[in-house]
Amino acid sequence: MTMYELILKKKRGGALTSEEINWMVREYTNGCIPDYQMSAMLMAVCFQKMNTEETTALTLAMADSGDRMDLSSIKGIKVDKHSTGGVGDKTSLVLAPLVASLGIPVAKMSGRGLGHTGGTIDKLESISGFRTSLSEEEFLKNVADIHIAIAGQTKNLAPADKKLYALRDVTGTVDNLSLIASSIMSKKLASGADAIVLDVKAGDGAFMKTPGEAKALARMMIQIGEKAGKAMTAVISDMNQPLGNAVGNALELEEVIATLKGHGPEDLTELVFTLGACMLLSAKAADSMEDAEKKLQDALFSGKAYGKFLEFVKAQGGNTDQVEDPCLLPQASLRMEVYADREGFVTGIHTEEIGRICLLLGGGRAVKEDPIDPAVGIVLHRKIGDFVKKGDSIATICANDKTKCQAAGDRLKAAYEYGDRSLEERKIVYEVIH
Amino acid sequence: MTMYELILKKKRGGALTSEEINWMVREYTNGCIPDYQMSAMLMAVCFQKMNTEETTALTLAMADSGDRMDLSSIKGIKVDKHSTGGVGDKTSLVLAPLVASLGIPVAKMSGRGLGHTGGTIDKLESISGFRTSLSEEEFLKNVADIHIAIAGQTKNLAPADKKLYALRDVTGTVDNLSLIASSIMSKKLASGADAIVLDVKAGDGAFMKTPGEAKALARMMIQIGEKAGKAMTAVISDMNQPLGNAVGNALELEEVIATLKGHGPEDLTELVFTLGACMLLSAKAADSMEDAEKKLQDALFSGKAYGKFLEFVKAQGGNTDQVEDPCLLPQASLRMEVYADREGFVTGIHTEEIGRICLLLGGGRAVKEDPIDPAVGIVLHRKIGDFVKKGDSIATICANDKTKCQAAGDRLKAAYEYGDRSLEERKIVYEVIH
Repeated sequence: MTMYELILKKKRGGALTSEEINWMVREYTNGCIPDYQMSAMLMAVCFQKMNTEETTALTLAMADSGDRMDLSSIKGIKVDKHSTGGVGDKTSLVLAPLVASLGIPVAKMSGRGLGHTGGTIDKLESISGFRTSLSEEEFLKNVADIHIAIAGQTKNLAPADKKLYALRDVTGTVDNLSLIASSIMSKKLASGADAIVLDVKAGDGAFMKTPGEAKALARMMIQIGEKAGKAMTAVISDMNQPLGNAVGNALELEEVIATLKGHGPEDLTELVFTLGACMLLSAKAADSMEDAEKKLQDALFSGKAYGKFLEFVKAQGGNTDQVEDPCLLPQASLRMEVYADREGFVTGIHTEEIGRICLLLGGGRAVKEDPIDPAVGIVLHRKIGDFVKKGDSIATICANDKTKCQAAGDRLKAAYEYGDRSLEERKIVYEVIH
Repeated sequence: MTMYELILKKKRGGALTSEEINWMVREYTNGCIPDYQMSAMLMAVCFQKMNTEETTALTLAMADSGDRMDLSSIKGIKVDKHSTGGVGDKTSLVLAPLVASLGIPVAKMSGRGLGHTGGTIDKLESISGFRTSLSEEEFLKNVADIHIAIAGQTKNLAPADKKLYALRDVTGTVDNLSLIASSIMSKKLASGADAIVLDVKAGDGAFMKTPGEAKALARMMIQIGEKAGKAMTAVISDMNQPLGNAVGNALELEEVIATLKGHGPEDLTELVFTLGACMLLSAKAADSMEDAEKKLQDALFSGKAYGKFLEFVKAQGGNTDQVEDPCLLPQASLRMEVYADREGFVTGIHTEEIGRICLLLGGGRAVKEDPIDPAVGIVLHRKIGDFVKKGDSIATICANDKTKCQAAGDRLKAAYEYGDRSLEERKIVYEVIH
């Protein structure tokens, strides 16, 4: 077997066998297949696609390329949640303590942000002292003791995916359904949960631009997960505008705290309840979606979820004073209002652009090694459907650099679209697929 | 401009501008664009193609990536000939002395063999002492003195093509028309001739499988050459069976000598006359194809062409005794006849497979660094249309290794197809395009 032959086979539209895919992933991870051959293969896959068998084989090969987490010491059904990524997506930070507060074990490994999307780990690190790299022992102990731990992915979790993802990122081969699905699912399978709830985002700020595309991706991931013996659920949710109002690490954390206290943005709260209900059902901790949502509402509005969040932050070394008083979180030195220059209804927000503006301010990373400024970001005051008068503030820019602040303001203004009539109200959840 | 953006543009079906192509070729040659990005681009080109403007821009950028030969010191119209490569293709070795014997300057830079096709330089090196790396001075002096010099490509001739070709070769991106055309034409343009005659092969043993594909490639190369101010001619010739009977370096040289003495295989002799006539016309040394062929026949059958070959071998340091007595050329230690196991007419010969068998015997190289055994190869005794009785020898295998010899025999037997009726006689030349 040679990589050359496999490239030609795929280029001509053939399907690779499991044996071929296993060999390819192993040899690539070992460094025996050079990047230049793998990138040719990836581009051929973008044009010729992979079928379900190939995608499953790729996922399993990548999941097995490193260590698999062993969560068997934790009692009960372990449920993991994954988002395909979006702008302002702080869902996990509300969802994890909420679900944990109902006694469901949440053992979550999360990624850092890259490009225009943010990462859970970066957001948590806005809290001083918060440790995101835990030993396996500590991670498991926290889940056993307080039902929750969130840590960065260990170095040896699906290393093949790590290497492939880095290559896809620089060779224009990110947007293939099979490659996206296998990348996500390989990490989820290696993370060891029994059930997986996927939040597949659709819209301008997501990889999948339409609900149709998102559904296709969701279906593919569900198939892969079920073949690997996992209970799978997917929620298709809207990413045609940022989720909630805050975009930027500490700003989003502030919004998370508000939401855990019961006064978060409506879209975020609703999405959390839907995803949480799916998790409860998967964990067999509720009889129906309605029953589950009721339990989640009780946990949220009673303050139980917020209490769990405090407990979680403390357990991982974070300064809980900053949670109790978010003014103590990193603050930007400059705050600038962005004013509407016309009257009308907001009909669109270029969501990916909002993510890029946050990146420009220093709140994200263009390449993996970039440092992050936790304080900067954007808080939106108007979202799709809202009416705006000329001169109203549509957003606040939080920055630590005057030039960047000004540039961000200009770009933000241009990211809003207006019309004369209000659109129908947007639903945050398009569909739940079991 | 970033390579990432250019990859995405091509992947989405866009046309690259000349500026983008120049930048890409320059940065890749400099080592500033990594192989893994270029191979993704090449694969995208295989799927999305390049238009004529892109192909011309790529050719010119590669031609200008190194030194251009200056043939202006040689009087007269300099005509170069190029074959797209095939099995048993020893045409240049007959053609060059034949044309030179008529006083037309032949300044030829040739390649080595790679994969299943052979290379002129390797064949010449079967002659002991023959030097294929000449200084520019010596090269030009030989052309001025005796009208002929054949040398390996200098290191700095179209280095961008060299680097790209090596990458295409291992990433399954060889077979795109624009990439093939630009690779050939960049070297031809950098070689400095005024007129170029192309031998574009079509068939199982060539890159282009059908005459239609070969014509499309020929037309593309003619367009590029004419845009660069060269007089262009293309001959579309058959490669559905090896050219002549011998495949293997010293064996082919022996056939070249026989052909120059006037008793070579018919197909080879005819192709040489057609290509030679095109060269004479391009050099304005004949009035018509008929006139040119007449002159060539005279030169061949009078022994003038053979005399020129001796002169040429001597000038480049080769042992002319080996030319006068081909038994002195490297000889294989094993000779095995391959017998037909049925009766019938030969209806097909898997030509690429014949090339691969020669490779297996050690007569070619799988990778650039492989050494070559000049003695080994195959001599065919039956070609398409011939009648074979069971037990007739269809070919002789010349080998230096018993196991390989046996394997070669088995594969050779399987490479022949038989039928009950003779096919129409094959024409070696499909078409001449001026």
